[in-house]
Amino acid sequence: VKEVRTVDESTHRRADARRNSAAILAAATECLARDPDMTLKDIAAAAGVGRVTLYGHYESRAVLVEAVVDRAIEQTDLELREVDLSGDPLVAMGRLMAVSFDLTHRFGGLVLAAQRALPPGRFQALHEAPAARVRQLLTRGRRGGSFRTDAPLAWQVMTIQALMHGAVEAVYRGDLTAVQARGLVPTTVLATLERRGPHE
Amino acid sequence: VKEVRTVDESTHRRADARRNSAAILAAATECLARDPDMTLKDIAAAAGVGRVTLYGHYESRAVLVEAVVDRAIEQTDLELREVDLSGDPLVAMGRLMAVSFDLTHRFGGLVLAAQRALPPGRFQALHEAPAARVRQLLTRGRRGGSFRTDAPLAWQVMTIQALMHGAVEAVYRGDLTAVQARGLVPTTVLATLERRGPHE
Repeated sequence: VKEVRTVDESTHRRADARRNSAAILAAATECLARDPDMTLKDIAAAAGVGRVTLYGHYESRAVLVEAVVDRAIEQTDLELREVDLSGDPLVAMGRLMAVSFDLTHRFGGLVLAAQRALPPGRFQALHEAPAARVRQLLTRGRRGGSFRTDAPLAWQVMTIQALMHGAVEAVYRGDLTAVQARGLVPTTVLATLERRGPHE
Repeated sequence: VKEVRTVDESTHRRADARRNSAAILAAATECLARDPDMTLKDIAAAAGVGRVTLYGHYESRAVLVEAVVDRAIEQTDLELREVDLSGDPLVAMGRLMAVSFDLTHRFGGLVLAAQRALPPGRFQALHEAPAARVRQLLTRGRRGGSFRTDAPLAWQVMTIQALMHGAVEAVYRGDLTAVQARGLVPTTVLATLERRGPHE
């Protein structure tokens, strides 16, 4: 009987740990989206756990932010799979940019928190899945003659990431509305990609 | 005689403090340009001062990075004043972008260090002088019909900043060469600004 109780207790503890970890991630996502400088103390309070419990799961701010960003990108990537990337590459890219903006914009200040807390290169590495999707569409559009080829593919991927994150930050700062940015991101990205007779 | 010596000593101390402060800023600029994660300990060593002296001048990493960035932008801004912004706004913008890239690129990893260490909004605030110059040229080009006006001025300023910093980071990461980026920044910025009949 004693052994069974021990198993029960350890099962309970594991379930508690999972619940706490999930609550911390959810609270951290919401807190950092609102304010990228939210303290770990405030995040622990929002998650309904003590600071010691939070540090037990995530040993530093950088580790917590990375876990939050990883989960946010994974979730975004699952939703981006639903975007139709077939047909005219310019139209498909416009569609992908509008949906990507909506999905990234939800996380608001998290983009700023990530740039600040993650070691160099980590931000890029975490974006590998969405970057791969953009790269695939760019490759198709470049081959088919829809997109400019006088800039390297890596440059076009960088341009898209920089504009997307710049747009989310600008909306977070209040420089323009999300509705404006949702229209401007696709227009601006397409302007950088479209071939134009006299300029190429 | 005693009083005179005291004045001398305090003058010496002030001169020492100025020399140390200048040495720390110069070393920090060079260190962070090479590696945005360089520790304060390494920066103190490169400046030839102790850690206590460094903390005496700059109480935290954020304060030091802000002083370095402030100085780098001030220096850049002085040099940008030499760029001829008259004539065709498209040509003038291309010129301003190429020179801005050269001047920003010198500071390499410092762009990454700044994004990471500065409080939100501070990075933008420090860029007010170069942003004002860009805004002035954009305003002239928009009024004269050279630049698109279907995007707000604030969006065009953001686009330019995002592309400039994205380019410096991409070169820092080794995704492309500085020579490539120096050509691509103006081309890409102009593509986002130029008016085009069927698309407007």
